[in-house]
Formats: sequence, C-alpha cells, structure tokens
Amino acid sequence: MWLQSISQGGRKSNMKNFNLCLLGYGNVGGALVRLLREKREEVRREFGVEWRVTGLASRRMGWLAAPEGFEESELLGGPVFRRKPPRPENVEEWLAAARCDVLFETTSLEPLTGEPAISHVRAGLRHGAHVVTANKGTIVHAYRELSELARARGRRFMFEATVADCPVFSLFRGSLPAARLLSFKGIFNSTTNVVLEALAAGGTFEEGVGRAQALGITETDPAHDVDGWDSAVKTCALANVLMGADLRPADVPREGIRGLSREEVRAAHAEGRPFKLVARARREGGGLVSASVRPERVEPRGPFAAVEGTTLAVDFELDVLPGLTVVARDPNLKSTAYGLLADFLNAVG
Amino acid sequence: MWLQSISQGGRKSNMKNFNLCLLGYGNVGGALVRLLREKREEVRREFGVEWRVTGLASRRMGWLAAPEGFEESELLGGPVFRRKPPRPENVEEWLAAARCDVLFETTSLEPLTGEPAISHVRAGLRHGAHVVTANKGTIVHAYRELSELARARGRRFMFEATVADCPVFSLFRGSLPAARLLSFKGIFNSTTNVVLEALAAGGTFEEGVGRAQALGITETDPAHDVDGWDSAVKTCALANVLMGADLRPADVPREGIRGLSREEVRAAHAEGRPFKLVARARREGGGLVSASVRPERVEPRGPFAAVEGTTLAVDFELDVLPGLTVVARDPNLKSTAYGLLADFLNAVG
Repeated sequence: MWLQSISQGGRKSNMKNFNLCLLGYGNVGGALVRLLREKREEVRREFGVEWRVTGLASRRMGWLAAPEGFEESELLGGPVFRRKPPRPENVEEWLAAARCDVLFETTSLEPLTGEPAISHVRAGLRHGAHVVTANKGTIVHAYRELSELARARGRRFMFEATVADCPVFSLFRGSLPAARLLSFKGIFNSTTNVVLEALAAGGTFEEGVGRAQALGITETDPAHDVDGWDSAVKTCALANVLMGADLRPADVPREGIRGLSREEVRAAHAEGRPFKLVARARREGGGLVSASVRPERVEPRGPFAAVEGTTLAVDFELDVLPGLTVVARDPNLKSTAYGLLADFLNAVG
Repeated sequence: MWLQSISQGGRKSNMKNFNLCLLGYGNVGGALVRLLREKREEVRREFGVEWRVTGLASRRMGWLAAPEGFEESELLGGPVFRRKPPRPENVEEWLAAARCDVLFETTSLEPLTGEPAISHVRAGLRHGAHVVTANKGTIVHAYRELSELARARGRRFMFEATVADCPVFSLFRGSLPAARLLSFKGIFNSTTNVVLEALAAGGTFEEGVGRAQALGITETDPAHDVDGWDSAVKTCALANVLMGADLRPADVPREGIRGLSREEVRAAHAEGRPFKLVARARREGGGLVSASVRPERVEPRGPFAAVEGTTLAVDFELDVLPGLTVVARDPNLKSTAYGLLADFLNAVG
C-alpha cells in the first residue's frame, strides 16, 4: 500500500492506494474489474481507497505483472499477451513483480483437495497481501491454517463470495457478536432448484441440467451440483467458520436429487410442498457438529417458501433469535463480484 | 472506561471495563441485564470486555447511581430504592454520578417528537458516553444531529434494536460497503399481522388486538400499530439512515388496516394472497426518497410468504443484488435485548 496526499475540495486527505492482483481471470474476475471501475469514485470518496490492477493471471494468460498498473484497455480484453517484462514464472514471483497488496483468488473449485487455490492463498498471505477468495475449497480444506497464517502476518483472509451471494460470514462477524449459532439449514445450489422445477413442469432431468447450464449457474461438472457436492462443500464452509467445526465434504451424509422420480417431484410441487436440495448443520453435544445434504419437501409458510430458480437462502437458529433467514433473490455475476469488493473494503477499511 | 491488566491462562491481557447505565428499566432493560449476565464469560473471553451497571433510571425509580456498581440482587429487583447517596436529580447529574461509559436508552416512544429520548441521547453523548438506544424516535427526529454529535465526540450512537429485531443497520454498515440501496419494502409491525390473522380466522378486530396485547407486542396505544404509525416511524428510520433521506412519520402516506373488512381479509387469505401491512421506500430522482405504508396482498412465492404472527421482514433492492431479504422469525424480548448488546460490543470493539 502506498499513501498519497491529495487535495480534494480544498482540503488535503490521505488516500490509501492498493495494488490489486487477480488470479483466475474468468467471468467473476472480469465482473470484479467492471464493478471496481463503476464504484471507483464512491470508493475513493467514502473509503479513501484508490486502487490499480498490477497483476493478472490465468491458465490461458500465464503470470502477467505490470507494477505501474495495467491500462484500462488491457484489463478489458486488450493485448495483454504482448506486454514487455517482467514475466514471472510462478505465483511467488508474480506477487513480488506486481507488488501485490490484495490478491483476489477466483480460480475454479477442486472439491476434494481445494488445490491449487489453497497454495495461491498461502502464497498471497506469505507475500504480505490480504487475500480475498471466491473459492470455497480454501475454507473447507484449510480454513484454520489460512486464517492463522493471516493473523500471524497481520493480514486478512476473506471469502464472502463463496457460499450464497449475500452476506453470511460478514453478518456473523459484524452484526452478530457473541450470538451463538445453534443450527442452520440452507438452499445453496441453484442448479438443483432449476432441475427440480423443470421436472415439476414435466421436463426431463437432462432438460433441467441444460437449462441451468444455459443460465451459466452450474459447476464445471454439473454432477457436482445434482449429486449434492456443491451444497456439501458450502455446508462445511459455513460450519467450519461459524460453528468451529472441522468438516470435510466427504464427512457429510449426502443424497443428491437423481433418486427422485419425475412423478414424485410433480406431485410434491402440485401439493405446494415442493422438493428442494436442503443442507443442514447442527451443534450436537461435546463440541460436535452434524451435517447433511438431501432432498426435502419445503413448507409453503416456511423460510424457504420463496426460494426458486437462482435464488439462494439460509436460515439460522441462534440462541438470541429463533430464526434469522437471509435470502439472495436472483443474484447475478455482479453480486458475486460484489462479495469480493465488500471483502476488499472490509479488509483495508 | 478503565483498563485492567489481568492474568488469564498464564498470559496477561488488557481487559476493557465499562460502566453501563440503563435509562428506562422496563421489560427490555431487564432482558438486557439478564443477557449481559448470561454472556459475561463469553464477552470477557472473546471481546476482552468487562462491565458493571452503575446507573439505573426510570419514571418509577428516579435517577439511581452506584459508581462502584449495583449488586446483582439490586439489578434483579432488589431494594434499589433504599440506596444511600448519590441521588442525582437529572440526567446530566446521573450520568456524571454513575461515571457512565455506555448509556442504554430504552424509554418508550413518543412518535411525534421523539422526546424525551432525544434529550437523553444528547446528554449521554455530551457526557462522553457511547449511546445505544431501542427508541426509534431518536433516529426519526434527530438522526443527523445525534450522529454528528457522536462523531464530534468520538463516540458511537447505535440503534439496531429499533426496527426489526434482526440486523439491518449493522448489515449495511458492516456487510454492504459501497452497495447502493435503491428501495426496500418491509413488514415491520407484528400487531397488524396478528389482527389480520384473527380476522382471517373469523375473529373480530378487537379480538385480534386483544391477542396481540396478550402477546406483549403492541405499542402502549395499539392505535399506533393498526393505524400504521409504528410502521411509518420504522420506515423513516431506515430511509433516513440507509438512504440519506430526511423523512418524518407525518410525511409518509399512511393507511392502516381498519379500512379492511373481515370479508375481504378472509377472502384474500383463502386465496393464498393475504393482506399484510407493507411499508415501502424508494429512491426517486434528484436525491428524493418516497415512502408509503398501506395494506397489500402478498404473493405466495414472494419474499413475505413466510411472514406471520410476530415474524418481521425486510426486503432490500440493491444495485449489486436484485433482492436481499432478511427475516426475523418469532423474535422475543431476548432478541431485542441482543440488539442492544450487539451495539454495545460493536461500539467498544
């Protein structure tokens, strides 16, 4: 971070400047850059924060660093490939060459190991950067190690964009101090919503998956959605961070939606108590946390009555409030990018 | 605040100690003291915060100060009346005698002026205390003045317990930096839920009000609920703080639920699109904010489908997320007290 004394409306103010590096420059990374540009003035005015992108990396582009900042045209799809040196060859060299202050990690999920995202986060924190990730594998497989590393380095490890495209981690951190989370249930996967709705409307399973793919909401392998892996990963992420659990996806009893027949899905829907893929976690005695993912029929007056299509929801049971439901209705790519921006501002604010 | 160096598990840590004063020692104040006691160990361990109650005041008790802290037995209904001096005679003397660090203002609402709560908050901030209030009149009638006074004194003015018994103000402050709130709609009044449900079940208006009174959820004068004043006050509170508006309850077009016949309420309920008292606010051009309170029929798949009885809900439309719904299901007195505790911890944390 470099400090800059600027004159604004007659008065001097200290602006904090940050070098941002984006690792995994796909849809989410692109949306983040667009959102950062859209909010540049407000972020400067309200938070005293200025930024430039000094690092871009993806499998396709390799490790690109521009210590003085990439040009707008380069960020938005220009000829970044033809840049002059430095040309770093690995994540450590790249972070150093880019003089990274904040690393945004948005590579795609490898659910069973969380790699290489975990190595990226570790490298970012060791370099001395704050790390903001959209990759839930990092929390599921290495939350304790990475959060302790961040603490030791005096940096932040943030991951609001991983679970539900709305505030859950920051909600507990900022709004619910000393509240005890007893249990939660959630609908964390929109592909299964869309597939079940297609079945209820008389379509086939494959048509439902195709519709979800057309919406751009599936995991790279849609089996991760329909077999409940995505929900199990998110359940572990929430339980590990908010309940002090140490769960892995393979520990979660998991039943996807393939076992439901079109007839029972249609009948349940017609009765007004449709099937959804519901994830649950609950504190048991002795510090244990139990969890499950399976299809359940949801009640018309229950907390998930309005959850359809791409809408996601989580319902928390607290010692101080019987039910706190948070619903993200129709989140889009900008919503995911916003999770990253909010983490950035909270990390440096 | 006084600092205390204590030895804990072999290592020394600095504990921050606060003198708490409770002004308006009714149901909410009592619940706050019980919750503070319940959470004492956790607050000490997780936040490094210790506290004692040094001031109690209500219309019945007068101004009571115990600079070394009240005894447990006194807090829980013991013989506080027979205390020896100091016996302060007004709020300023009381704050000084109690060496107040944090003032909890929980007197009852006077919707048209916000007094005397506003004067209490002002006195607390001038004394140099953080002020936490459950009184929405203070925000509706004096948000700008009081928040500027707090800023000038380097203290916090907090009010999470005023609107919906779940995080709304802290949600925007902590979880939604640089997000723009375009509009919101909410069900902020549970008395009207209960009355409308009584009508739908074939009961009378008066029976519904009686049921709400038995639940302890009505304003002192239930007309404030059924005529929409309570909802209008809460709408102004949210709009003034979260949208930079400067609305007063009398500015809000307001229609209560008295004009609905039992027949139309029953018919709407039977159709699955029941009436609720819905509050709305929306940014218009030119920095203006429009607002309204009126009965509306809610959709079975909409964000308020699950709102019944004492449940409250608010649905936010943001530039970064089409819909963010927060629902507090069956909040109780402890939930309200928790809003005050959370504000306290956020103010001093």
